[in-house]
Amino acid sequence: MAKTYRSEVICVGSELLCDRVNTDINILSEILAKAGISVKKCIIVGDEESEITDAVAESLKRSDILIITGGLGPTSDDITKDSVAKFLNRRLLYSEEIWESILEKFARRGTAPPEINKRQAYIIEESEVIKNPAGTAPGLIVNVGEKLIALFPGPPVELRPMAEFFAGSLKKLSADKPIEVYRFGISGTPESAVEEKVQPAMKKLGIKYTILAHPQMIEILIIPGCMPEKVEKVENFLKNTFNEDYMGLNPPPLHEIVGNILKEKKLKLAIAESCTGGLASKLVTDIPGSSVYFQGAFVAYSNTVKKRVLKVSRPILKKYGAVSAETAAAMAKGAIKAGKADVSLSFTGIAGPSGETDEKPAGLVFIGIGLPGRKYKTFKFIFTGNRERIREQAVNKGFYLLARTLRDSFNEK
Amino acid sequence: MAKTYRSEVICVGSELLCDRVNTDINILSEILAKAGISVKKCIIVGDEESEITDAVAESLKRSDILIITGGLGPTSDDITKDSVAKFLNRRLLYSEEIWESILEKFARRGTAPPEINKRQAYIIEESEVIKNPAGTAPGLIVNVGEKLIALFPGPPVELRPMAEFFAGSLKKLSADKPIEVYRFGISGTPESAVEEKVQPAMKKLGIKYTILAHPQMIEILIIPGCMPEKVEKVENFLKNTFNEDYMGLNPPPLHEIVGNILKEKKLKLAIAESCTGGLASKLVTDIPGSSVYFQGAFVAYSNTVKKRVLKVSRPILKKYGAVSAETAAAMAKGAIKAGKADVSLSFTGIAGPSGETDEKPAGLVFIGIGLPGRKYKTFKFIFTGNRERIREQAVNKGFYLLARTLRDSFNEK
Repeated sequence: MAKTYRSEVICVGSELLCDRVNTDINILSEILAKAGISVKKCIIVGDEESEITDAVAESLKRSDILIITGGLGPTSDDITKDSVAKFLNRRLLYSEEIWESILEKFARRGTAPPEINKRQAYIIEESEVIKNPAGTAPGLIVNVGEKLIALFPGPPVELRPMAEFFAGSLKKLSADKPIEVYRFGISGTPESAVEEKVQPAMKKLGIKYTILAHPQMIEILIIPGCMPEKVEKVENFLKNTFNEDYMGLNPPPLHEIVGNILKEKKLKLAIAESCTGGLASKLVTDIPGSSVYFQGAFVAYSNTVKKRVLKVSRPILKKYGAVSAETAAAMAKGAIKAGKADVSLSFTGIAGPSGETDEKPAGLVFIGIGLPGRKYKTFKFIFTGNRERIREQAVNKGFYLLARTLRDSFNEK
Repeated sequence: MAKTYRSEVICVGSELLCDRVNTDINILSEILAKAGISVKKCIIVGDEESEITDAVAESLKRSDILIITGGLGPTSDDITKDSVAKFLNRRLLYSEEIWESILEKFARRGTAPPEINKRQAYIIEESEVIKNPAGTAPGLIVNVGEKLIALFPGPPVELRPMAEFFAGSLKKLSADKPIEVYRFGISGTPESAVEEKVQPAMKKLGIKYTILAHPQMIEILIIPGCMPEKVEKVENFLKNTFNEDYMGLNPPPLHEIVGNILKEKKLKLAIAESCTGGLASKLVTDIPGSSVYFQGAFVAYSNTVKKRVLKVSRPILKKYGAVSAETAAAMAKGAIKAGKADVSLSFTGIAGPSGETDEKPAGLVFIGIGLPGRKYKTFKFIFTGNRERIREQAVNKGFYLLARTLRDSFNEK
């Protein structure tokens, strides 16, 4: 019979400082939500047997579904499978079939597996094997009474297809509908100002919500079970309250919004970056297919490149300095020219910690926008935080301003 | 009396999919290690009272020190402080002093705090307040019998100074010496090949170790208590076994290694990127002070920019295509010229998922290196994984090849 499930995730890492953990959690939350199952808790432990078994014992008390990622590799520090088998009092059985699939994978690369890979051919007694097209560690699903423990490899490319498969089979069992989360995006307004306006409106509508502040955008999340007509009311309220700062329902990231506008208006973009060092360009090209509207970027980290490639004039650099509205405008102009583009975005500033002066503190950033017809706009900001945060805020503010400017400039016509 | 501590971390997020969690864990692990305290487990839960109190109850059973991050913001979904107070059966007391410091912070920005910020001026009865220079939420340290619970804000810039302060006071109490972790880096050799060579050697030396595979580098970690003379033996073994693939003890990331070589040799670098879209440039400029050796980058995402700025000739693009060794070499040449640089690095390939053909599959990347005296080298790779992974691998391989080439070329002279 269909039932409601509670799930938890345990990530096992060679140590806690393990970059993939966040990605694993995101993948599992997203995929399980499609089956109506929410991940309520996530535990991260190192490759230590007692830590792993303690976490499993704890999670099994509260949850119906437990997904463990990581620690299935070939090396001797990978002990997840052994620890879970021991905890469940089950044997590990050698599978000739899995070993052959590992041999085959190595053969395709023209090599033979080292002997240590043989450890990956052992499976927990009475478990279901999930094939791993992207790697050598098979996934395992173990029934423990009414509960399920899944053991999946940690690398996201290997984890994702297994999680999809697992969620697919759970969907048939689960009584819950897919969890629809409504995300409304606001950009250009600070978090507490958003909350002050949103809180009374949501109270009136009787909606439970949560606010997330990303460097990109403030997100208002409405959690499961919200009626569609209420969603519409929330949207109308946000549109009327935040105007052009309202980024829409389930909005893509700002750099994708910019890409969509460029595609729609058939405009080509070029970017000139100084302090942001290539981050804006990296984000634009994160989107597959961005080559349709993106000509390229010029990271003019030195004045030499500002002069040679972007044709920022010596007098401008001398009179106003590299970090100035004038240089930002000249960079925007140069980017359009060098990139044969219609519009441009430029950044020049002090990312810190070095290079700051009394007049020009770390965090000072000028953003330029170039538009057809030799029109240029510049904006000045003082961001706070460390080097990384300053660069991130600058780039996101740039995309926000570009999206707004493109909408304003091209809708009037 | 000095004692040995076990610590755990609980991250509270508006939802589990919260980008800062990994950063918080890294910061706490790193800083507590300096006080000889290791983080054994990390739990991530949402903003739900029962989840928070369950996690606190569980962690207190096993650990002496519990650090909770997040959920201290001004908005109504931030309930960490309330939940912990309730769990401990303590009151929340209003602190005029904290409220005044919040008023002051807003005044400096020329505004007044919204009324909801007043929530941040309440502290748990009998707790110690830690000032927050970077934000408005104070940190709290609560004594619970022999144990300590610290509540710190989630944003990394606010968390770090508080964690430093906390670790400083724990250091005086802790019986343990700072935990020295030795990280040895290997690049250019696959993980299982590293393990096969390392495993017997470490066994002979009687050393417990763990292997981590990053996109940048394979790391071999030797955990606490290793004798210095053994560390030296490990280093010698790795040097002799992996030669130029051995990246050193506690090596910085590859792009920083490249930066250090450039600085030492007084060489200036320019980068030309196509498929990597600015990622290489972004990484180089992540390092403060990189302007000393970095001239700039040209993200030639379109053939227009390849031709106009990098002077890749029409015949080369026509005959070999944009994704070819010939174009990579021409880009490396163009980058040196346009950037007035001594050396260059170039990338052209298919990051996928679009743009691939039978002859040129996604993952195919050509890397070019330009050296003084018009010398150019090119390398061909087929990387696997998704768009992000392909770009990441390409860039890291590029930095690795550049570091090796610079060492080879400039040491011979």
